[in-house]
Amino acid sequence: MKLRSKDLRQTPPSLSSVGRRRFLATGFLAGAAGLAPAALKAQGAVEPEFHWRMATSWPPNFPIFEHGALRFAANVRTMSGGRMQIEVDPASKHKAPFGVFDLVREGHYQMGHSCSYYWKGKDPAMTTLAATPFGMNAQEQNAWFWYGGGTALMNKVYERHGLLSFNAGNTAVQMGGWFRKEIKSLDDLRGLKMRIPGLAGDVLARVGATPVNIPAGELYTSLEKNVIDALEWVGPHLDLSMGFQKVADYYYTGWHEPGTELQYLFNKESYEALPSDIKAILQVAMKESSFDMLCESVYKNTMTWAEMARDYPRVKVRQFPAEVIRELRRQTSIVLDELAGESPLLAEVLDSQREFLARARQWTAISDREYLRVRT
Amino acid sequence: MKLRSKDLRQTPPSLSSVGRRRFLATGFLAGAAGLAPAALKAQGAVEPEFHWRMATSWPPNFPIFEHGALRFAANVRTMSGGRMQIEVDPASKHKAPFGVFDLVREGHYQMGHSCSYYWKGKDPAMTTLAATPFGMNAQEQNAWFWYGGGTALMNKVYERHGLLSFNAGNTAVQMGGWFRKEIKSLDDLRGLKMRIPGLAGDVLARVGATPVNIPAGELYTSLEKNVIDALEWVGPHLDLSMGFQKVADYYYTGWHEPGTELQYLFNKESYEALPSDIKAILQVAMKESSFDMLCESVYKNTMTWAEMARDYPRVKVRQFPAEVIRELRRQTSIVLDELAGESPLLAEVLDSQREFLARARQWTAISDREYLRVRT
Repeated sequence: MKLRSKDLRQTPPSLSSVGRRRFLATGFLAGAAGLAPAALKAQGAVEPEFHWRMATSWPPNFPIFEHGALRFAANVRTMSGGRMQIEVDPASKHKAPFGVFDLVREGHYQMGHSCSYYWKGKDPAMTTLAATPFGMNAQEQNAWFWYGGGTALMNKVYERHGLLSFNAGNTAVQMGGWFRKEIKSLDDLRGLKMRIPGLAGDVLARVGATPVNIPAGELYTSLEKNVIDALEWVGPHLDLSMGFQKVADYYYTGWHEPGTELQYLFNKESYEALPSDIKAILQVAMKESSFDMLCESVYKNTMTWAEMARDYPRVKVRQFPAEVIRELRRQTSIVLDELAGESPLLAEVLDSQREFLARARQWTAISDREYLRVRT
Repeated sequence: MKLRSKDLRQTPPSLSSVGRRRFLATGFLAGAAGLAPAALKAQGAVEPEFHWRMATSWPPNFPIFEHGALRFAANVRTMSGGRMQIEVDPASKHKAPFGVFDLVREGHYQMGHSCSYYWKGKDPAMTTLAATPFGMNAQEQNAWFWYGGGTALMNKVYERHGLLSFNAGNTAVQMGGWFRKEIKSLDDLRGLKMRIPGLAGDVLARVGATPVNIPAGELYTSLEKNVIDALEWVGPHLDLSMGFQKVADYYYTGWHEPGTELQYLFNKESYEALPSDIKAILQVAMKESSFDMLCESVYKNTMTWAEMARDYPRVKVRQFPAEVIRELRRQTSIVLDELAGESPLLAEVLDSQREFLARARQWTAISDREYLRVRT
């Protein structure tokens, strides 16, 4: 999924009722984290020493995505005893969902909450830090980021732009999208008009499809009116809130975003001016929210998938034919190699990711995949 | 894996060189988290207001497991600006690896770091909070704990004992163990003497095997001298450091601990006496360390698995035959139902886990399992 400015007009209606109150408890005892400001005052908490603002790329209260940012801010306030307060501005407020990079670099905001593949135009090395077709899944990618040198490489990329970047949470495997007609062979992709941005769009173009990008608010109508033949968004929880199941029969399993990681962005200068305890609070709270977003994503997709089978039995879940997958995989390698040829830094990131994946492929096959086979 | 007192005599030698220094950086900038006490003093940090002690069930510096506890303590110290210090005592110090529950309940320690299935004798409801044969994997279980009501149920169980419990990290899928002879049918399990404790041991007993428990320090010799025919421990990283690959040819894939979760234990009274900001710091730091342990586990198993193929090509990786898996799965259900019949609280926990797994089974098959199939 990638959003554009017009996406902000629409908040999935089924979730607009989610208030901020649910971000105010993080642990085993209600009220331990995220105390309301009044309660903090009653405890003699100081006025904020650090008053920061964070710009996100999401609509207000956007499930899973914006939830992570709000959770983080609530935890920072409580952990710092009220010394640090971070105001979270959804994109409907600052009007620049794809300007978060510049808003933070130029110091209008100290922090951002977005996704690294939006900044491909700034620096191609930022792309695969978010997601790679046929790449690592969430569990493998988290291992790579935290123990395989990923976070250091990510900051090597961002520091050149006066920024720091930090993991913000994973969607886990995204679905391959909604199609009005069944895809039975590579031929069925030729001429297909699909809303699919980014690297995956580049790959689809090479097999003869026409990738386009359309704002979220127009997606449903575009599919309904045959302006497009197919689209990908995220996964069952967010997709069903958009209503796609009403205008497309075929829902395909995923290949192009196997573990999309969101990101926190920092203005480097602002971050470095903070004292050590506050820096540590930010880092640990970010990593906690990153983990929590993955949990929220898995939980909500699990529950929505079960509801879909019950409420929309006419949705036909399909897997792309073997020849289609083979060709998409082959073209993905070519696209990535070409991009790496243009950017030595992307080549460095990609080498590290591919080297780890070569090993992870083996271990995941023996551990998770084999376990899922016998559990059935 | 379960440890007994004698396990503490032995720290895997390959990892004894891991010092505490590596726990002193948690984020993207060296030194941001986990500053040494001297540095804190230089910054004018206060003397600790809260000086706590934590008892773990692990040998000193035990990789992955004890690492998580040390990481947590370092982060708490830095985030609190030195106001809270938690001393981590490995089991070699307090001499009661399986007494952690009582040490914390009786207030000798304010906190513990252990695993819930060790307390099955105290309360059967504690067992499946750690791991269940043929149950949820790490990703599903984390979704259940944090969004599916798992943490609330866990504390319903522990509060009856004057304790609180919190997730501490996951090993991900554990291997099925090392066997000196190949298992070709159910017959090959009859009479087999295997070191496999807990629920899985109960299940194996029902198919005619003899489950035993042997301290870690004696495992290698027991297998070498045919005192036992087979054993399970954890996964490649910890197993290879024990040398099992030198005395058994067959390494089986997993079924019995698909996502073992460690736990923090709190003395409830001690916890409740803390101020809100410190409580929040503890909770967020625990959840971060829980996520980090999963990352460390996946990373190290991935790397060790690749080394094993290179260094020990004679290890034969095997899957249990279909008839064996079918029978183990059937007996697991029976064992769990019997236990639930004895404990209404276990029945409540198990119902919630089974209900979520019934849905997660579907979504995981469509998302992760299907993705792993096409990525190959």
